[in-house]
Amino acid sequence: MDTDEFRRCGTDMVNYVADYFDTLRSRPVMPYVQHGFLKKLIPEKAPHKAESYEDVKKDLEDVVLKGVLHWRSPHFHAFVPLASSFPALIADMLVGALSSMPITWSANPSGTELEVAMMDWLGQMLKLPEEFLFSSGGKGGGVIQMTADDSATVAIIAARARAVREHGDMTPGQTLDKLVAYTSAEAHTCIKKAAQLALVNIRLLPTDENFSLRGQTLAAAIKEDKNKGFIPFFLGASVGTTSTIAVDNLCELGKICEQENVWMHIDAAYAGSAAICPEFRYLINGVEYSTSFCLNPHKWLHVNLLCSAMWIKDRELITEPFNVDPVYLRNHNLNGDVKMPDYRHWTIQLSRPFTSLKLWFVLRMYGVQQLQERIRKDVKLAKQFEALVRNDHRFEIVAQVVLGVVCFKLKGKNNDVNEELLKRINDDRRIYLTPSTSKGVFYLRFCIAVYTTDSKDVSFAWNIVQEQTDVLLGLHVNGIDEKTKKIDKVDATECFQ
Amino acid sequence: MDTDEFRRCGTDMVNYVADYFDTLRSRPVMPYVQHGFLKKLIPEKAPHKAESYEDVKKDLEDVVLKGVLHWRSPHFHAFVPLASSFPALIADMLVGALSSMPITWSANPSGTELEVAMMDWLGQMLKLPEEFLFSSGGKGGGVIQMTADDSATVAIIAARARAVREHGDMTPGQTLDKLVAYTSAEAHTCIKKAAQLALVNIRLLPTDENFSLRGQTLAAAIKEDKNKGFIPFFLGASVGTTSTIAVDNLCELGKICEQENVWMHIDAAYAGSAAICPEFRYLINGVEYSTSFCLNPHKWLHVNLLCSAMWIKDRELITEPFNVDPVYLRNHNLNGDVKMPDYRHWTIQLSRPFTSLKLWFVLRMYGVQQLQERIRKDVKLAKQFEALVRNDHRFEIVAQVVLGVVCFKLKGKNNDVNEELLKRINDDRRIYLTPSTSKGVFYLRFCIAVYTTDSKDVSFAWNIVQEQTDVLLGLHVNGIDEKTKKIDKVDATECFQ
Repeated sequence: MDTDEFRRCGTDMVNYVADYFDTLRSRPVMPYVQHGFLKKLIPEKAPHKAESYEDVKKDLEDVVLKGVLHWRSPHFHAFVPLASSFPALIADMLVGALSSMPITWSANPSGTELEVAMMDWLGQMLKLPEEFLFSSGGKGGGVIQMTADDSATVAIIAARARAVREHGDMTPGQTLDKLVAYTSAEAHTCIKKAAQLALVNIRLLPTDENFSLRGQTLAAAIKEDKNKGFIPFFLGASVGTTSTIAVDNLCELGKICEQENVWMHIDAAYAGSAAICPEFRYLINGVEYSTSFCLNPHKWLHVNLLCSAMWIKDRELITEPFNVDPVYLRNHNLNGDVKMPDYRHWTIQLSRPFTSLKLWFVLRMYGVQQLQERIRKDVKLAKQFEALVRNDHRFEIVAQVVLGVVCFKLKGKNNDVNEELLKRINDDRRIYLTPSTSKGVFYLRFCIAVYTTDSKDVSFAWNIVQEQTDVLLGLHVNGIDEKTKKIDKVDATECFQ
Repeated sequence: MDTDEFRRCGTDMVNYVADYFDTLRSRPVMPYVQHGFLKKLIPEKAPHKAESYEDVKKDLEDVVLKGVLHWRSPHFHAFVPLASSFPALIADMLVGALSSMPITWSANPSGTELEVAMMDWLGQMLKLPEEFLFSSGGKGGGVIQMTADDSATVAIIAARARAVREHGDMTPGQTLDKLVAYTSAEAHTCIKKAAQLALVNIRLLPTDENFSLRGQTLAAAIKEDKNKGFIPFFLGASVGTTSTIAVDNLCELGKICEQENVWMHIDAAYAGSAAICPEFRYLINGVEYSTSFCLNPHKWLHVNLLCSAMWIKDRELITEPFNVDPVYLRNHNLNGDVKMPDYRHWTIQLSRPFTSLKLWFVLRMYGVQQLQERIRKDVKLAKQFEALVRNDHRFEIVAQVVLGVVCFKLKGKNNDVNEELLKRINDDRRIYLTPSTSKGVFYLRFCIAVYTTDSKDVSFAWNIVQEQTDVLLGLHVNGIDEKTKKIDKVDATECFQ
């Protein structure tokens, strides 16, 4: 394909993407397929001879879109938001075209320096303490990791390296057996997974009535573990747990971590972005006690995958254990006032895209104001849904609604009944919700996941919840659109949650 | 930005990208900037109010491209190839637009099943043993990781988990202190870094005269370590080291690993792709002994970042240690003949893009034939460069030229002189090369890194090497273009390698 052909086909794909977004509301959010469906639709082997763009394109609807869950649909209310936006998609074209990797400064000076600048811009928007920013001239700075899992893994491995160094009287393995990390029972799996990868013990601590981890719980656990001869070294604190968007008490926890030489890493993957609004900045109060902090612009700041922003107070804590220095990656840094980082020492991966370009497009083309407005809009819509739930005596709200997620369940009904309700809602396929459990209680989660979701979509979703509740509880059968029952041969109830 | 605006700006960016490729040959491959240049060109803070697409676009040349190393230039001869192609860029638009993550089957059925299919297609193209493919109906299968570092890290952590499990009489830490991994002194840093992350001992073993790790070297090391009470558990074997593209003797090593219960992971990140050509399939002979195998389509198979293909003989070896299973990610698999993987259990990251779509576009729009032709063309061009080097009595070839990289140096000259030659070549800025060292010897590497590089570009590069050699050795000064000396105020010699 030459550049002329790319102009033609690239433009066609731009229009296909635009058409996709224009028709999203009319597509069922969930596909009607069962396990193994795709095998019948494509050949068993790669073609020997090249096919045309048109050959591939004609399979898009019949193969790819046939089985896609539409994460960009305004009726998608699952998980937490996954960001994407037109400015980011446009920037992404350039990222792919340049394919210039900021692994060393020399390998992409603009990529390195734009990442430095964007991490400082974003840090300022969040009012992070100065010491996290490059502009302070101190030891801190930010880096774009792929995901919050990477950020957590990098943090726990760096914390482990520090602990091993501090216990030079023992072998690494002896230290490892004694190390203990903490997180709340409500934290995202990335913290637990990071501990598994680091091969360290981890304790999932209980939370208070708001699903928040409190200082006294941590203090008691540390005391108990120290008495047993363990070495507490890491806390994965959450600002916005995946289940209920609960916020741990960072100030209480941070003070204890400071006293006990425990590395506090804050995973604020989704909720952290809200802190760009003055009224939500309180959510990250206590960040000053943390050693590292992360939020994902690919969740709530309009940047598509993969973009997790991580800041650290002392960058040598991560660059030291991650440093490998072959001649084939050598890079001469100029001496002088400004010394730019070689980002390959900050990450698990050597290869890394020029992702700061996407942040640059997004921060400029939205401006702080529109990014704030989006967050406020989502929170307002969640409050709208909360009010609808509270207005229906059959339901209860499971957790405080602080941001864009509403956790709710049928009042006085057991887990099975609530699970059945969710199944019915999703089988209907016009909206998509995911569940969670906290303290043994199963509930439904309604998330404002996509920026195009509006007030009518919220009412639309609530109507479906009510319809399905009516059927489930056998109260009213009038008004239910019977077509939603006639799905197809697939026993869809088994496919989806 | 609404869809109409996206049609307009997206089309504009498609044309901008096409223009970029059309003008690439006329751009100096390396930028004329020094550390800290970007700070002066952009504001200190993110804008409060939104800017237009045109505002951002007008800064592209003056800010971004001013300091980019042009990895897509036909005159870029550094590192190993980093892939990008128009079909991949077009597919990438759709990946970003859909933002539908194959983390569980339900979360993106097409994404999960297309990944399964593409990993099988690619595995068949490489003639991997059946047991690595899903189609065998056995325990094996493939997964798209982000990078070869991720693949190596996943492999070593899974191998560590198996070793810890097999030594249940000891604590994990006690086992860890005894575990020892191996790789060659020439292997890519990803293996060493993976061992650092896994906190296991690693030995860098010496290679033979072709920079290949041999069986007897490994056997001797294992014997020695076992005598000392260590537990050999992992070998990171290379098919195509970064420095000289050396290939370890997989058959010799594999047999020993099999006998000794050592997990052989093959890192074939760049060179492995050549095995789709029958005449280069021998490079991966012995893959049948490996537990896991990886190559990066984002290196030599036209897929842009991030795409590392990893196969494993027994997928439970990785899904077990990587498994975390919260209700909010629950997924009901249908019982039946076909059971699809939940890829979130295969990777460090939970979030993962729909990358199989890019593989699908690329494999179809090139077809196996054109992918083979590209590899053959690159090898032929490398041979052309090798012949030019061999024809100049001042130079010597440092390592066998098997694929697309030529390692060469000034004959009888020490490292400093060769380093000075490289510096002069790169300061000229019309081409870009990176160096390496093996066994203490510094040399230059010439890589056919970009698919648009042609025979004339190879001659062009060789002419520059000769010109700079003439100047360096003070033999001829005629014919040297004096403008290449007048760079700018920046002392460029310090910026770049």
